[in-house]
Amino acid sequence: MRRTIDWADGAIEILDQCALPHEVRVLRLTTVDELIAAIRRLAVRGAPALGAAGALGTALSALRHRDEDAVRADAKRLADARPTAVNLGWGVRRALNRLPEGPQFVLEEAMAVLDEDERVNRKASERAAEFLLDRCARRPLRLLTHCNAGRLATVGWGTALGVVWHLQAAGQLEYVFADETRPLLQGARLTAWELGEAGVPYRLLPDSAAASAIARGLVDAVVVGADRIAANGDVANKVGTYPLALAAARHGIPFVVVAPMSTVDSQVPSGDGIVVEERAAEEVTHVAGRPVAPPDAAVFNPAFDVTPADLVTAIATEDGFFPLE
Amino acid sequence: MRRTIDWADGAIEILDQCALPHEVRVLRLTTVDELIAAIRRLAVRGAPALGAAGALGTALSALRHRDEDAVRADAKRLADARPTAVNLGWGVRRALNRLPEGPQFVLEEAMAVLDEDERVNRKASERAAEFLLDRCARRPLRLLTHCNAGRLATVGWGTALGVVWHLQAAGQLEYVFADETRPLLQGARLTAWELGEAGVPYRLLPDSAAASAIARGLVDAVVVGADRIAANGDVANKVGTYPLALAAARHGIPFVVVAPMSTVDSQVPSGDGIVVEERAAEEVTHVAGRPVAPPDAAVFNPAFDVTPADLVTAIATEDGFFPLE
Repeated sequence: MRRTIDWADGAIEILDQCALPHEVRVLRLTTVDELIAAIRRLAVRGAPALGAAGALGTALSALRHRDEDAVRADAKRLADARPTAVNLGWGVRRALNRLPEGPQFVLEEAMAVLDEDERVNRKASERAAEFLLDRCARRPLRLLTHCNAGRLATVGWGTALGVVWHLQAAGQLEYVFADETRPLLQGARLTAWELGEAGVPYRLLPDSAAASAIARGLVDAVVVGADRIAANGDVANKVGTYPLALAAARHGIPFVVVAPMSTVDSQVPSGDGIVVEERAAEEVTHVAGRPVAPPDAAVFNPAFDVTPADLVTAIATEDGFFPLE
Repeated sequence: MRRTIDWADGAIEILDQCALPHEVRVLRLTTVDELIAAIRRLAVRGAPALGAAGALGTALSALRHRDEDAVRADAKRLADARPTAVNLGWGVRRALNRLPEGPQFVLEEAMAVLDEDERVNRKASERAAEFLLDRCARRPLRLLTHCNAGRLATVGWGTALGVVWHLQAAGQLEYVFADETRPLLQGARLTAWELGEAGVPYRLLPDSAAASAIARGLVDAVVVGADRIAANGDVANKVGTYPLALAAARHGIPFVVVAPMSTVDSQVPSGDGIVVEERAAEEVTHVAGRPVAPPDAAVFNPAFDVTPADLVTAIATEDGFFPLE
């Protein structure tokens, strides 16, 4: 299966997530500016995939510039392209550490980031799947997820959807409720597409209907990814995650986060310290290019929210449950 | 100000809510079938406005048919046009009770329903405004609302937005957060339009961002309407209301429902007995006529949810707080 982001013939190739589900289109990015633009318009997105993008973008710069300062300037711009996903800066730093050895070593490190990604996600999601089979009595399991934490949010396999693939392979999955995830509809466009491609029964729902599905007893557990995890276990993830945790707590079902350890930002003591990206008003006032609100409407459009640690049942990583024992 | 729904020259005139905010268009409905079609596609919507529609539709039928059985058959079809809003059947029954006296008396009763609507909503929303000024320390107040419970959801004035108009007139309103309200975007299309017309500062937000706004301390109270209230105080309202109540409870701000007493269904002991309308998949898979999901996506699209009474701070009606003392 094609990787969501990869290196090919001296350039970065990404599966353009703005074109899905209508078109499967591969974009070839030959400059750091093109990569930053792709990150900003979410053609490549998802915390683990952004880690890979950061590393590959740094390699691209290292291979193009003789001047180390120019590479470091590119690396800084890349790391700052989106403020909330900690993995972006993590990927950049990991690749940049090899710069003194020469550009080929920067690329080697970036490729190592890509190679590790699938292994790490498989491990973290397997841990979460085992946790849910242990915690939930009903068989097969019925999950609810938000945004896209699948293959498309990573180099391959996925985090929250990785749990789905494990349970499906084990014959332990009944269906998945996929939140559409306004404003950019990653659930409707990406998660629904991934689940359909994999033959997983699913139902798409407005984000605001998730609490109803949970209240009606149609969901055994909520499973999501993460964009940044604070030292105390507060979780920043796509806006709309926090209300799911509130509903899960009210109805006594597990709320599980699946994320690589690279998502943990030990520099940030709690969610209060996480900068949440505020995105353009047009994402809310327009859908698929059409206006759906008065033209002068002011908008509140935070890309992420913070779920407090006390509402999180478990955070599964490749190394164990966070915080690690 | 023009009524949302009215009787004019032997027909029902409605402000077409499917055309807003792009166009202010008046539809003239001359048959019960046209009215039922308008109700189903939500050209006229909102529990109090549906009460008026039920009464006027019954009058329309009574004026057209000599045969009482034909009127009763029309009345039944009208009352069943949407299953959750109890006011629709209430308006139909109220008008139908006068049928033995003759069709002019049916119309007279329907016009009485319309005339009472604004008075009742003014009274209920004034009660809610006073309650909030008593409960919330901050001045001026910052409210969050969901869907559209304004002039457009009623014959005039509004229920939840009625609170906004009272507070605005008293100089006690800072701004309103208006949930866009997927799938049909009544918040983006209707509430934003009403607030803009009235010069009320507002910010439109994805439904899933409401919990973030509350968690950040940007909201003093949540104020919504209702489509059916059970005898125990459980409240059915537009899907997405229940998660707002969960967030309000978590952050200790009031969650207030404003509704005429005609919204109370004393025949239904609790929310478990409320039938929730399931609407078409296309409302979720398409936005403004454009596909936003894989074409074969299955959908979960309940029009309403039920907020349990223990999460409701107060239900303000024209007669007092429900349950009435």
